[in-house]
Amino acid sequence: MKRREFLKKAGVGLGASAVAMPAIAQSMPEVKWRLQSAFPKSLDTIYGAAEVFARYISEATDGKFQIQVFGAGEIVGTFQLADAVGNGTVEMGHATMYYYVGKDPTFAIASAIPFGPNTRQMNAWLYEAGGQDLLNEFFAKHGFFGLVGGNTGTQMGGWFRKELKTVQDLQGLKMRIGGLAGQVLQKLGLVPQQIAGGDIYPALERGTIDAAEWVGPYDDEKLGFNKVAPFYYYPGFWEGGPALHFFINNAKWNELPKSYKALATVAASHAGIDMTAKYDAKNPAALRRLVGAGAQLRPFSQEILEASLKAANETYDELSAKNPDWKKVYESYRAFRSEEYLWWQVAEYTYDNFMIRARARG
Amino acid sequence: MKRREFLKKAGVGLGASAVAMPAIAQSMPEVKWRLQSAFPKSLDTIYGAAEVFARYISEATDGKFQIQVFGAGEIVGTFQLADAVGNGTVEMGHATMYYYVGKDPTFAIASAIPFGPNTRQMNAWLYEAGGQDLLNEFFAKHGFFGLVGGNTGTQMGGWFRKELKTVQDLQGLKMRIGGLAGQVLQKLGLVPQQIAGGDIYPALERGTIDAAEWVGPYDDEKLGFNKVAPFYYYPGFWEGGPALHFFINNAKWNELPKSYKALATVAASHAGIDMTAKYDAKNPAALRRLVGAGAQLRPFSQEILEASLKAANETYDELSAKNPDWKKVYESYRAFRSEEYLWWQVAEYTYDNFMIRARARG
Repeated sequence: MKRREFLKKAGVGLGASAVAMPAIAQSMPEVKWRLQSAFPKSLDTIYGAAEVFARYISEATDGKFQIQVFGAGEIVGTFQLADAVGNGTVEMGHATMYYYVGKDPTFAIASAIPFGPNTRQMNAWLYEAGGQDLLNEFFAKHGFFGLVGGNTGTQMGGWFRKELKTVQDLQGLKMRIGGLAGQVLQKLGLVPQQIAGGDIYPALERGTIDAAEWVGPYDDEKLGFNKVAPFYYYPGFWEGGPALHFFINNAKWNELPKSYKALATVAASHAGIDMTAKYDAKNPAALRRLVGAGAQLRPFSQEILEASLKAANETYDELSAKNPDWKKVYESYRAFRSEEYLWWQVAEYTYDNFMIRARARG
Repeated sequence: MKRREFLKKAGVGLGASAVAMPAIAQSMPEVKWRLQSAFPKSLDTIYGAAEVFARYISEATDGKFQIQVFGAGEIVGTFQLADAVGNGTVEMGHATMYYYVGKDPTFAIASAIPFGPNTRQMNAWLYEAGGQDLLNEFFAKHGFFGLVGGNTGTQMGGWFRKELKTVQDLQGLKMRIGGLAGQVLQKLGLVPQQIAGGDIYPALERGTIDAAEWVGPYDDEKLGFNKVAPFYYYPGFWEGGPALHFFINNAKWNELPKSYKALATVAASHAGIDMTAKYDAKNPAALRRLVGAGAQLRPFSQEILEASLKAANETYDELSAKNPDWKKVYESYRAFRSEEYLWWQVAEYTYDNFMIRARARG
């Protein structure tokens, strides 16, 4: 029997069953997987990370471990992706896990909830403070295993047709907003809308919605929101440091030899740090172009931020009272965030503060 | 001839010559390298990154690509490490490249110079704005190739026996300080000292020096500086986002098959993001312990920061006038930093600002 045929019959790459293979086959078996991204191919930043991941894995194995990458909706809908990976329809996905708050709000903590840690703090919790281990206990109940795979940086608060000054201005405001933020802001009268990326622009243009948040300058510019909703608010306080995950069907992950697990882990980190670097490198010029094209930059008022923080903490207490998974993961996350900001205000923040003011003076 | 013997004779792992190998041998040859870190094994954070790098490479290749890691000074002195890698005495090193400013000040830009970009901005420049490509052109002249491999975050400004208020207080101050910062602060009367990690404590205790900077709370705590120099200043404005590099002898790097190059690249990124996460996760509790043990936290005065910035810019102009490598790399770095801070003040800084103030209020 030829080696490739043996491996196929043994189920590697097809995943029919986990098998014990001879050592030589284990080291570099032929594996072919499909990965669906939660994002459209037009987003070279966030979709691009899945391509980077797959390319390095293929290169490092001389093409023996191949992962074909699909854009949002090409196999299943983005909001069905967690189920599709859990039941093995596709081997793996790449997403901001807050897309799956409908299944369980605990998924939101894996990515971002309002007033969470910033990007580096989130990485620190995930990699070095047991965050990813806690999440993987939870993910296992849904049939998959997660690897940290990127972060967008603090997002923008989105595009508004009218200026926003007081909490009163949120009353009845129809806004496209993702994750747990809609549930939080509903407490302040906002009417959250779930709308896929491509449908946001026409909804804003027709006035079906009053506001929409997407990501940040570089991604937002592609969708052209500034033309129909000129007020561009910051910061996106519901996405202070949104993490992405590569997530893999449990059985498929367990079938991989140790060597491929190690490779996938480091390739996910590389795709992740490279994604954040892409956002950080591309956002400044995009922001300049947007402002040049008429976008009106506005900070959220202190009143809105304070009221939103209060609403967020109420929401988190309610969830802790009824969802043990949420409670377990959230308590670790909240305690870590508080310690982090204690330290952050010393070296990091003071340094950024001086640099920003020095730059402003030229 | 057995496969392993063939590979040995062909020089793989011994590096006698670059050879064309049959495809199957190219994919996973036996390679054994030595890596010396610029840091002592006691620093699980910054030394530990080299161990993480080596462990994942070994796992991903079933032990076929093995890198043995040595601590500072175990093969050559830390300040000789760049030469040792360049001439092939050891295959690779891991360091903050500003240790090699004595060879060429351009090395400092690869790690940190006073008032440089912060950690994420530095990653963005290196990975996505051509920074690492420019550095690799420069590194090639010294015989090696670099991979981005970590960042400590903004460091602390160090430990001082006396309080520091005005620029006048820097006059004659003998300080252990690394990289290009000593040269900059000399313009303000400071007397920089080059002292290895283990010798700093006795020098401070005896009063041979007046101040010393090392890294940040977690690493500094291990050396016990707070007992002999209680004033702990921030931020370390000469290390706003110090990058680390894995650097590899040119010939050894070129000998690697494409698969191992891909693996080393992603393993370096993983070791890097994990190092930053370790610092971010461990510094908060260490800072609490240091303050509990009597450390007096102090921000540098605005006067000292302003005068240091002026001295830094003068130094950079002088270097640009006489060193073409410096000029080429610095111009890319400076322009990028300015763009980054334009964007940073919008979403990231505003978010951190709110979170820090909300935390302080409880």
